[in-house]
Amino acid sequence: MALDIKPGQTHIKSKAMVAWAAGEPLKMEEVDVQLPKAGEVLVRIVATGVCHTDLFTLSGDDPEGIFPSILGHEGGGIVEMVGEGVTGLEVGDHVIPLYTAECGECKFCKSGKTNLCQAVRETQGQGLMPDGTSRFSINGETIFHYMGCSTFSEYTVLPEISLAKVSKDAPLEEVCLLGCGVTTGMGAVLNTAKVEKGDTVAVFGLGGIGLSAIIGAKMAGASRIIGVDLNESKYELAKKLGATDCINPTTFDKPIQEVIVEMTDGGVDYSFECIGNVNVMRAALECCHKGWGESIIIGVAGAGQEISTRPFQLVTGRVWRGSAFGGVKGRTELPGIVDRYMQGEFALDDFITHTMGLADVNAAFDLMHEGKSIRTVLHMDK
Amino acid sequence: MALDIKPGQTHIKSKAMVAWAAGEPLKMEEVDVQLPKAGEVLVRIVATGVCHTDLFTLSGDDPEGIFPSILGHEGGGIVEMVGEGVTGLEVGDHVIPLYTAECGECKFCKSGKTNLCQAVRETQGQGLMPDGTSRFSINGETIFHYMGCSTFSEYTVLPEISLAKVSKDAPLEEVCLLGCGVTTGMGAVLNTAKVEKGDTVAVFGLGGIGLSAIIGAKMAGASRIIGVDLNESKYELAKKLGATDCINPTTFDKPIQEVIVEMTDGGVDYSFECIGNVNVMRAALECCHKGWGESIIIGVAGAGQEISTRPFQLVTGRVWRGSAFGGVKGRTELPGIVDRYMQGEFALDDFITHTMGLADVNAAFDLMHEGKSIRTVLHMDK
Repeated sequence: MALDIKPGQTHIKSKAMVAWAAGEPLKMEEVDVQLPKAGEVLVRIVATGVCHTDLFTLSGDDPEGIFPSILGHEGGGIVEMVGEGVTGLEVGDHVIPLYTAECGECKFCKSGKTNLCQAVRETQGQGLMPDGTSRFSINGETIFHYMGCSTFSEYTVLPEISLAKVSKDAPLEEVCLLGCGVTTGMGAVLNTAKVEKGDTVAVFGLGGIGLSAIIGAKMAGASRIIGVDLNESKYELAKKLGATDCINPTTFDKPIQEVIVEMTDGGVDYSFECIGNVNVMRAALECCHKGWGESIIIGVAGAGQEISTRPFQLVTGRVWRGSAFGGVKGRTELPGIVDRYMQGEFALDDFITHTMGLADVNAAFDLMHEGKSIRTVLHMDK
Repeated sequence: MALDIKPGQTHIKSKAMVAWAAGEPLKMEEVDVQLPKAGEVLVRIVATGVCHTDLFTLSGDDPEGIFPSILGHEGGGIVEMVGEGVTGLEVGDHVIPLYTAECGECKFCKSGKTNLCQAVRETQGQGLMPDGTSRFSINGETIFHYMGCSTFSEYTVLPEISLAKVSKDAPLEEVCLLGCGVTTGMGAVLNTAKVEKGDTVAVFGLGGIGLSAIIGAKMAGASRIIGVDLNESKYELAKKLGATDCINPTTFDKPIQEVIVEMTDGGVDYSFECIGNVNVMRAALECCHKGWGESIIIGVAGAGQEISTRPFQLVTGRVWRGSAFGGVKGRTELPGIVDRYMQGEFALDDFITHTMGLADVNAAFDLMHEGKSIRTVLHMDK
């Protein structure tokens, strides 16, 4: 199973689904993957989830999208080779790629107040490794990295600080989802909001992130969990996971924030926006309880869009905050979340509505676009 | 000094400055003050500050303004008579009127999470006592209460739950300022934001609230306190009170938030908006440090105005919140702030730029409007 790298060899071949241009289907290619440089790690991806953010970037609406590139950022894999100076990982380790690194050295990591490590942010945003170059190419043409992960490839290269080492007992075909969506939703509830037993919660949007937020709220012991979505076909799963009420804003003749305030005798303790719609973000804030309610923005809005409200909403005690990757510090905290999963504290199988091979990623995008899947997991060996 | 109330007497006479209509100067009148009913207290005001909020209501821009009424809400006084059932106060007690009551019984008080007691809020907003009637009249015509306080009157009536009992050693001519402005600014820093030693702080607006926020930041041990104001004549006092830098947005060719981010290597830990300008509220949020910076809105914006920003500001870790009366629970916490003042932890004399008699309140408004005063204190015996 291990790679047979010959002395002097600089590249390996890898199959990958390449995004050649915005709006075009991904295309299966054989790419050249340069072997890891100092501080870098070669990872064989075993499985990868398909996330809305991949589709968002492919659509061309993401102002930071770069092409040609290899998308995918919700993966699980095995270390195949480590570059010079890598001490925390060795061949055979199971890893989850992190689109938010954790260097432990920067001002952000040292603050202890945030998971937004800035160590590799600039080059990552340019689709490059920290040294300013890409490890992917086809016939000498550069193919760019994506979110520092590029998991829609059999092999990928990441900085050591962008890999969480997880238990070898954990099935990578499931815990790959902890690389983005599930951790993002669950972490926003448990880490960012710190929901407590008996609290009331509203979750706007019942996709993968919203359902994960519901799982988190259930784990925290929330007394009431209100799911909000226009698509009523999502209610059954939401209720199975812990939602106590599911409501459809189009069935009321008043703003949904007023409906929720009435349902909860003044508003919820915490709300979560899991869509990326700035109007919903406002509703999520305004359905919070006066005096202490907090609203957490998780969804990513379109470029240039803005949120608004009357400042009175804040002066009377509501708090507006956001959460990225659930506030989770990838290398130090994600392994523990995998362990909690292995101990049965939460399930992931409800999320995995479809499994396919890497070549089927365009079909997975279609299912997502049509609202027919929660998560499709691509297995590299399918 | 004590009032001589005859058996069967229902009213006393009081001089008061009455606001007959929006935009008109206040007029000295002899008003009839009905003696306190059950749960109410008659207070003789000794001194009262003049606050921007009084002027805002008088201007007619306050959509909740009611006329004719007796303005003023930053007072200090002495209990002259208590109504039936009042057990926490007795004649001779020194008190500070509270525009935010503290009943200890409502959902808000019991939550422990907010100072926004709702017990008397509805009637207070209507200019009335909790039983739905006013204690003020002139020749039988109702004169309304204001913010539950009406301190521009020699005598006023308040619910017991709207009075903080403070040390008799404290000079009422000074600690009256703790009834609004000073507590609002200082409390926003110490209670709402919980600024800690070494933190960096920006304060937008160097009026009474902003200067109080600077005092609070200094008390907390902030390492850098940046004052922002268009009026450079305010810088001297701001620096005396603790500001390390004072900057004028009009002297830069880029947005003030960018200036502050550059000055502080990424932004401040906490910012405070002490003006009520929604554009400044945005700047205050955006000058906060990515990952953890928090902006606290203290100022009251005009009716219908809205704040806006890109949600990315929150998703990348900034927090937007507000503060009313500095998050201070009036009856349980304000007496302790008075004690800290008496122990010399902070000064109030810098705030009191002018003292006058009650009849001079229109002149005090003029000084404030022209930016020539921080606070004018009206002494009833002048």
